[in-house]
Amino acid sequence: MSAPSAFLAVDWGTTNRRVFRFEDGAVVHTERDDRGAASVTDFAGEVAAIRERFGDLPMLLAGMVGSTVGWRVVPYVAVPAGIDELVAGLDWIDDRTAIVPGVSCSAGGRADVMRGEEVQLLGAVAGWMVPSDALLAQPGTHCKWATMKDGRIGGFTTAMTGELFALLRGHSLLARALTAEVTDGDAFREGLAEGARRDLAASLFGIRAASVLGVRGDADAASFASGVLIGADVAARMDDCAFEQIHILADPGLGNLYAAAVAATGREPVIVDSHSAFARGVLAIGDKAL
Amino acid sequence: MSAPSAFLAVDWGTTNRRVFRFEDGAVVHTERDDRGAASVTDFAGEVAAIRERFGDLPMLLAGMVGSTVGWRVVPYVAVPAGIDELVAGLDWIDDRTAIVPGVSCSAGGRADVMRGEEVQLLGAVAGWMVPSDALLAQPGTHCKWATMKDGRIGGFTTAMTGELFALLRGHSLLARALTAEVTDGDAFREGLAEGARRDLAASLFGIRAASVLGVRGDADAASFASGVLIGADVAARMDDCAFEQIHILADPGLGNLYAAAVAATGREPVIVDSHSAFARGVLAIGDKAL
Repeated sequence: MSAPSAFLAVDWGTTNRRVFRFEDGAVVHTERDDRGAASVTDFAGEVAAIRERFGDLPMLLAGMVGSTVGWRVVPYVAVPAGIDELVAGLDWIDDRTAIVPGVSCSAGGRADVMRGEEVQLLGAVAGWMVPSDALLAQPGTHCKWATMKDGRIGGFTTAMTGELFALLRGHSLLARALTAEVTDGDAFREGLAEGARRDLAASLFGIRAASVLGVRGDADAASFASGVLIGADVAARMDDCAFEQIHILADPGLGNLYAAAVAATGREPVIVDSHSAFARGVLAIGDKAL
Repeated sequence: MSAPSAFLAVDWGTTNRRVFRFEDGAVVHTERDDRGAASVTDFAGEVAAIRERFGDLPMLLAGMVGSTVGWRVVPYVAVPAGIDELVAGLDWIDDRTAIVPGVSCSAGGRADVMRGEEVQLLGAVAGWMVPSDALLAQPGTHCKWATMKDGRIGGFTTAMTGELFALLRGHSLLARALTAEVTDGDAFREGLAEGARRDLAASLFGIRAASVLGVRGDADAASFASGVLIGADVAARMDDCAFEQIHILADPGLGNLYAAAVAATGREPVIVDSHSAFARGVLAIGDKAL
């Protein structure tokens, strides 16, 4: 098929979603709201409401909308996965509404899954924003690290780096020391070096000890802790990484912290806009499926 | 001084405490209760009540009773710290009641502190339960790893291994999968191997992925997660460890899990009873101070 002149797409996460209206290969309208999959029960009604607002058009849905907290569970497509594999795995709700499948991998006894990130990853390649062989990071609550091979997702690893930080800040012995905003300064850089030792449980207790002994002020503790977690995450991924450039799909805030961490390992970070990458990915799917 | 024929000691932690009555170098009576430092406000009254119940005798207090949540803050003694240094750092409440100081260390920009564990560590050496040069682990919420040198505490590292497990079980995305009891079986052993990769944030997300893909049953997830955390902790400590035997001061449950983890690295674990070690340590302090 060839793409219709206009269609809609939804990047539908657990807590938020973003709706796009495409015309002639470009985003002409996009809006973000908090009606994530976890807070929605009537998905058919939501989709009808989106069409009423954005146009009565074909629609592609990606992300957690295809999970157990979503509309219905769409089977994962195994790696290696490119645009063609995602198109083949589309779950059609009706003849003009489909859910994009997530991707799974299993290597050396370690399993991993993603839902939603695959569209960004493949879009970044389809849109010439990254080479067709590359290592891409998608920082967040669960940071995805994907190895692209010949333009397809060859394998990936998820690190719950952001969730660990939230757990420490919300519920741990360190909670009271971690209230400050995280910034890329000396404390963050010291945290990166400490994190590169990959001894997380000990490095994190060191934050407590430094506070008790007055070695580090609490204003710096959050940045140091973030540095430890991101530093450990990045260091682990550099172990068997053949690439000199590391591409980071992110919003500027978290993207800059990961870029600093990548630079600290001697590699070159390149930040790619994640919304543009999603748009390019969904256009590539729409081009073949709609 | 030489020790009085009888005295009392309290191993006074944050949430629990254990009272010992010594006579002629032996424990004749011991009791544990939940009146930890964090739940007590009138420490003088508590001490009077202990004397009423266990005998009107000289008394040594160790642990969090000397911290900000305790009776009063006793300055840390810096490493290297032996019985003599602890005796010199005793904080005398009155002429027959003293709080044992904690120990601090700082090496390579990393600070660490302990309160209470120092008595066990030095007692294990004083009681000929471990050699005077050794690596000792004290598993728990915060696992202490101390290098004993010439019978003194030469340096140590704390890993918040137990607290991380509690955070994951209590508040994380994995919480619902981690309700089963931890046992030393295949899942725990697989966790140890995974933990030895020292890529904690990724290994922990793998538990989620394995559950989603049905690769591992939830009954095994808690044991696997515990294996990952303990395996990473132990592997990090083996990095620059010169000892063939690793001594573990612990109750049997957690001690056996750490012993399995040590054995998996090819070293020989030796479990030492932590209550006996505390008793020997406090006897050694009493011998010089009371």
